[in-house]
Amino acid sequence: MKLYDYLPSGNSYKVRLLMSYLGLAYEHIDLDIHKGETHSDDFKAKNPAGQIPLLELSDGRCLAESNAIIFFLAEGTPYWPTSAFDQAKALQWMFFEQYKHEPAIAVARFIRIYAIDSRSAELEKLTPRGYAALDVMETHLADHLWFVGPGPTVADIALYAYTHVAGEGGFDLSKYPNILTWLDRVSDHPKHIRITDRPD
Amino acid sequence: MKLYDYLPSGNSYKVRLLMSYLGLAYEHIDLDIHKGETHSDDFKAKNPAGQIPLLELSDGRCLAESNAIIFFLAEGTPYWPTSAFDQAKALQWMFFEQYKHEPAIAVARFIRIYAIDSRSAELEKLTPRGYAALDVMETHLADHLWFVGPGPTVADIALYAYTHVAGEGGFDLSKYPNILTWLDRVSDHPKHIRITDRPD
Repeated sequence: MKLYDYLPSGNSYKVRLLMSYLGLAYEHIDLDIHKGETHSDDFKAKNPAGQIPLLELSDGRCLAESNAIIFFLAEGTPYWPTSAFDQAKALQWMFFEQYKHEPAIAVARFIRIYAIDSRSAELEKLTPRGYAALDVMETHLADHLWFVGPGPTVADIALYAYTHVAGEGGFDLSKYPNILTWLDRVSDHPKHIRITDRPD
Repeated sequence: MKLYDYLPSGNSYKVRLLMSYLGLAYEHIDLDIHKGETHSDDFKAKNPAGQIPLLELSDGRCLAESNAIIFFLAEGTPYWPTSAFDQAKALQWMFFEQYKHEPAIAVARFIRIYAIDSRSAELEKLTPRGYAALDVMETHLADHLWFVGPGPTVADIALYAYTHVAGEGGFDLSKYPNILTWLDRVSDHPKHIRITDRPD
């Protein structure tokens, strides 16, 4: 398998983290999104949406969208629930992540870490939206150790990716004690890697 | 089952359409999003995110996020693919729908049909984003009858919901012949219902 990737991307990190949990070997291909490398004709032939992460299987078939990729890799492992309802609950949280959480928290982080002045006005709207997503997580974690079921699943991996770097987007997590202990719970996994850890 | 719903919502329509395909009976509970009925304490106890559609099972368990709900209802039916890769491809398109398509096309439609003047400036950004999503669909449909596999799946249902009313968001579909024939293909289903059809 090949993973087309950009190291600071939380969406790509979801895939790297699950690959580490599962001990899967893969070829890591770094693309520089700032140099337009995801918009080359070669890459767009693999993913018309021009985005990383992209997983290429050994037979050449390609899969895009971080949460679809981790679903594919997790099926049949402990990281994908077994009951239909819990599977749907995991997807509920993953759609929440892509609709409410990532477009606020990841985008605010992107604008801040690359100091994109032309987009700094967006932060005024992104900040309350990001806190609203964090509020929903904090409420859920008040009486749950994990997002779905008794252990970590793809839902935790999807939500961990940008929550643990929310500070880089200007979000103050000190008001979220349940989220902070859950972040520690996730990073205590014996196969944990950091977002900055370059795969071998 | 109970479906908490708002008739003009494309996200809710996905659930109604699949329920019709599958011949499932359910209680339909209409909430008025403009009167804040999705933000009442009673409703937020069922869905902390305060959104429709929400599916309540007979045992009281609740499921949110339109695409997670249709996954749950479709599992084990012809509308959810059987191979792991095709399942992941269906989810790829459903995450594309919630990340690239709905936030542009559904939001532009919402601003236009309710004539929300305070948000009309957003249309300048939403319009090119919506057309970019339609371009990706048009390219895929150039050599595919359906989004995944040989027949309609949850991916088609998810993308049909707001594409068939994209005109209400100011999008001109006449430049998208592949999308237009696919829309006809979807609506030719013998159990098709319209977004305006109130469930019995």
